[in-house]
Amino acid sequence: MTDATNDAATPPYYRRHIFFCLNDRANGEACCARHGAQQAFEHCKAQVRALGLAGPGQVRVNKAGCLDRCAGGPVAVVYPDGVWYTYVDLADIDEIVTSHLRDGVAVERLRLPPDVGR
Amino acid sequence: MTDATNDAATPPYYRRHIFFCLNDRANGEACCARHGAQQAFEHCKAQVRALGLAGPGQVRVNKAGCLDRCAGGPVAVVYPDGVWYTYVDLADIDEIVTSHLRDGVAVERLRLPPDVGR
Repeated sequence: MTDATNDAATPPYYRRHIFFCLNDRANGEACCARHGAQQAFEHCKAQVRALGLAGPGQVRVNKAGCLDRCAGGPVAVVYPDGVWYTYVDLADIDEIVTSHLRDGVAVERLRLPPDVGR
Repeated sequence: MTDATNDAATPPYYRRHIFFCLNDRANGEACCARHGAQQAFEHCKAQVRALGLAGPGQVRVNKAGCLDRCAGGPVAVVYPDGVWYTYVDLADIDEIVTSHLRDGVAVERLRLPPDVGR
């Protein structure tokens, strides 16, 4: 039996892995897809590439289905840090990219409050 | 400036968050969606619910786009642990659910080798 935590000797496949909720609710309920999530995802991916941060050992920008914290949407989460974000515009995404994904410093003003759920 | 690592005083929103690659390549290239990923995702979600593990503070089973480790597909990753899996059948999923998602013990035989990429 091995503890699930990664062996410290094994570097993570991605140093930082960000997932954007791109869920689209067909029934008209609030969902990230109707609040600019697709554009934010694409912008993040492009910025990460432009800064040379993309790839194994570095950063991965990923699509995700519903992350089930819809009340705070649009949302994204950065692992392995476990830092959740809500964002308004592409300037917010730029700040997440440079501060957190590149420099490892969480963007406090964009953190999703801990009690925000579905 | 704050280190991106979660404050130890703040429990993670999900204790374990598993992402299944459900990417489907229209051009006929190998992709997780053509290797049972959708069924595995649905089975995992159902098992986690059946065991009472689903929800905030516990486990979330999530859809994801391409995780870019296609050579080892179908793949899934568990965060914040950063443990990557490849699986063959639903018995493998059951083992990931009970051993890792419920009990916190990684399933060594299903780990994706560290050098498997796109």
